[in-house]
Amino acid sequence: MSTNWMDRYDETVAEGFLGANDAHVGLSSLLGIAIDHVEPGRLRAGLEVTPALVTPIGNLHGGAVAALVDHVLGSVCYPHMERGQWAATTEFKVNYLRPVSDGRLVAEATIVTMTRRTAVVRVDVTNADRLVAAAQGTCTIVDPKA
Amino acid sequence: MSTNWMDRYDETVAEGFLGANDAHVGLSSLLGIAIDHVEPGRLRAGLEVTPALVTPIGNLHGGAVAALVDHVLGSVCYPHMERGQWAATTEFKVNYLRPVSDGRLVAEATIVTMTRRTAVVRVDVTNADRLVAAAQGTCTIVDPKA
Amino acid sequence: MSTNWMDRYDETVAEGFLGANDAHVGLSSLLGIAIDHVEPGRLRAGLEVTPALVTPIGNLHGGAVAALVDHVLGSVCYPHMERGQWAATTEFKVNYLRPVSDGRLVAEATIVTMTRRTAVVRVDVTNADRLVAAAQGTCTIVDPKA
Amino acid sequence: MSTNWMDRYDETVAEGFLGANDAHVGLSSLLGIAIDHVEPGRLRAGLEVTPALVTPIGNLHGGAVAALVDHVLGSVCYPHMERGQWAATTEFKVNYLRPVSDGRLVAEATIVTMTRRTAVVRVDVTNADRLVAAAQGTCTIVDPKA
Repeated sequence: MSTNWMDRYDETVAEGFLGANDAHVGLSSLLGIAIDHVEPGRLRAGLEVTPALVTPIGNLHGGAVAALVDHVLGSVCYPHMERGQWAATTEFKVNYLRPVSDGRLVAEATIVTMTRRTAVVRVDVTNADRLVAAAQGTCTIVDPKA
Repeated sequence: MSTNWMDRYDETVAEGFLGANDAHVGLSSLLGIAIDHVEPGRLRAGLEVTPALVTPIGNLHGGAVAALVDHVLGSVCYPHMERGQWAATTEFKVNYLRPVSDGRLVAEATIVTMTRRTAVVRVDVTNADRLVAAAQGTCTIVDPKA
Repeated sequence: MSTNWMDRYDETVAEGFLGANDAHVGLSSLLGIAIDHVEPGRLRAGLEVTPALVTPIGNLHGGAVAALVDHVLGSVCYPHMERGQWAATTEFKVNYLRPVSDGRLVAEATIVTMTRRTAVVRVDVTNADRLVAAAQGTCTIVDPKA
Repeated sequence: MSTNWMDRYDETVAEGFLGANDAHVGLSSLLGIAIDHVEPGRLRAGLEVTPALVTPIGNLHGGAVAALVDHVLGSVCYPHMERGQWAATTEFKVNYLRPVSDGRLVAEATIVTMTRRTAVVRVDVTNADRLVAAAQGTCTIVDPKA
């Protein structure tokens, strides 16, 4: 298994993720997504299952799970990328395994393979330590516009 | 192609979706999702690409696209279901085709096959009449808890 | 929807596909896959559901469906590519909709979007004019090794 | 993580898989698929990369990888099912990570979750100990026709 991508790991990017949680903006802010752990090849983020994210049936909206999956899929790549590049999720697939009604939703992304141009990532989503969704997808690494 | 599911279509459910847009709650409200067309086997919903949904790079967060896909995947099934049942997205896959930076994001869901227990649905997502994402997934039809 | 890829369509590649069916080799030959229609952005191939492809339960092995899907996913791109390039399926997803027990399995691939480097393709698989599987995936266009 | 499905494990089914390799029929026989390890929640099978499975470019046809994935996805469920039931792959997604040109292709399936009606399974495909494909999908457990 090629592990060349592991040769590059930018600790300050990882620390920046954690430090930015207080000031997070955009979709992360709307959904309350916070990154709470980063290590080489792995990143974990979560959100609180607030009433605003729950459907009339009483379950967390699958869209919130999918959004969290999408968020960690790209984020896990950044510490292994060059400054200025960005990671665009190209595609992913998610299986919902169990409904979620309260507590904290936690998604852990693990890089399966990564080249200079693309990464395949798996994501496990848990709630109260039970697996509630499993995902797999691809990020494309994009160079800064010259 | 079996079209038995087409024999059942509850117009008042469809109208209820459209009427509920002013009062929408939960994730729909957070993201500004509104259902704007329902017909047998097909449903269309959209959201405005507001600054709150855009990443620092200037593109709509993929998580918002995924959430909209998840939302229409289930919603398209309701007019063909019994009252009291609910549609749970079991799994889906999305390909992101182009970045989106402004305007309106529109997702159109089409039922591919549907039985009493499950439906497979395809979704086309457009922005300014260009296809920006394509998805495919499964809903499970769940009976009300007795 | 960008249609630039449609500007390039190599008719002799398309004709070559059809002419090669008698001499086909490799997995196509093992499974009896024959391409029977090619047009810009679309390609159709099929195989006979022989006893050798059927499980003890009496259904066509899903692996044969998946192999046919993979085959058309790449093939549909060739007439729109430069000579010498090759199309590698990067990922795909398939939903099996109905079991198949006999007759002919036909897969029709349609290009959703295509750039110089990548294409997203949808595939409909039918048996006796009924939809039995639906797939969606990505091909990467690879330049010849210098 | 619910592990109730682990309470049921039929060793003779597992042994039957291994013993049946000499007599295998159908798609397994065509592609040379042999199951070589079974344990609770996990099953491994492989095939030799013969010239008949290689494309003119010199790479193993992706269809052979997909067929092997489909095969182990269902097979891993059997020891945990009732006699007479069968496992139908409902959907799966595969990412191809590296081309394969020779040696042995090995797929290891792991049950992620399983109920009496459905199972979600992940598959890692390796060649010479390098990960060459990653898949994830769903099996439906079907009762015998009365």
